[in-house]
Amino acid sequence: MRKLTFFTLLLTATSFIGCDNVAKPTTQSGIEKPAFDLETAKKEITEVNKQFMELIAKGDSAGLANLYTSDAKVLFTGAPAVSGRAGIQTVFGNFIKSGVTKVDLKTVDLFGTEDFLVEESAVLIYVKEQMVAEEKALVVYKKEDGKWKLFRDMTNANTPQH
Amino acid sequence: MRKLTFFTLLLTATSFIGCDNVAKPTTQSGIEKPAFDLETAKKEITEVNKQFMELIAKGDSAGLANLYTSDAKVLFTGAPAVSGRAGIQTVFGNFIKSGVTKVDLKTVDLFGTEDFLVEESAVLIYVKEQMVAEEKALVVYKKEDGKWKLFRDMTNANTPQH
Repeated sequence: MRKLTFFTLLLTATSFIGCDNVAKPTTQSGIEKPAFDLETAKKEITEVNKQFMELIAKGDSAGLANLYTSDAKVLFTGAPAVSGRAGIQTVFGNFIKSGVTKVDLKTVDLFGTEDFLVEESAVLIYVKEQMVAEEKALVVYKKEDGKWKLFRDMTNANTPQH
Repeated sequence: MRKLTFFTLLLTATSFIGCDNVAKPTTQSGIEKPAFDLETAKKEITEVNKQFMELIAKGDSAGLANLYTSDAKVLFTGAPAVSGRAGIQTVFGNFIKSGVTKVDLKTVDLFGTEDFLVEESAVLIYVKEQMVAEEKALVVYKKEDGKWKLFRDMTNANTPQH
């Protein structure tokens, strides 16, 4: 009888340990995942935008393409969608060749989860010191190699174009 | 001793029940949440698009505004962003008054989680039987009252507009 009781108590303890494991937030592979924090994400997206603006100023289309995920798609205004980094690099190459010297990005709205972030931003495009277009953007970010990267990027004009 | 053993067994059983509850996906309030299934979500979004097309054909701007969340924002091309259902209803009212009789929506891409869905779609706009614009859209959906509703909706043209 004493033996049985000890065994039962052991079983009880084990089942409590089991509960504790289940309650922790884990990925499907069982690796612990840090809790998502939107304020931290906001700072990370501000940093991505800063890099984007610096790369435009430098005319670095390859650097710009690397801010996008390998499976990214840009949905810019006045052209069909373009998928993948090689295509995106060409898009930015042409954009820079067209005379753009500066892009100003300002986050209007940011929401999402650890899976996807969505940003609405205000976009000003400059040729030399002249502002040539006032646009808005809707950008979906996804993590790749532990870093938020642009996964979908759409823009349009704030005023009629015809 | 017999009494203690019975009590211990009862405790063991209780802790197993506890584990079972913890293992189920629940919201923070403890209410059970059904597992997210993208295929089901795809069917639901196809249904929303069907309703959207029917409401355009009927010229029902109030019905269209009700497909959006109460905190929705439309980011249509050639105009600043418009927030909230009243504003969105006006946008669709003007759109219908401008002569649009039909909008054709086709899902190109859909991804997301139970928190947000993101759809890329191909949009054809008709005045009477004449196709007048070929656009693409990036739409973010959020659940409101248990139904997927449009939360952000952005469009632009596939060809240069000037």
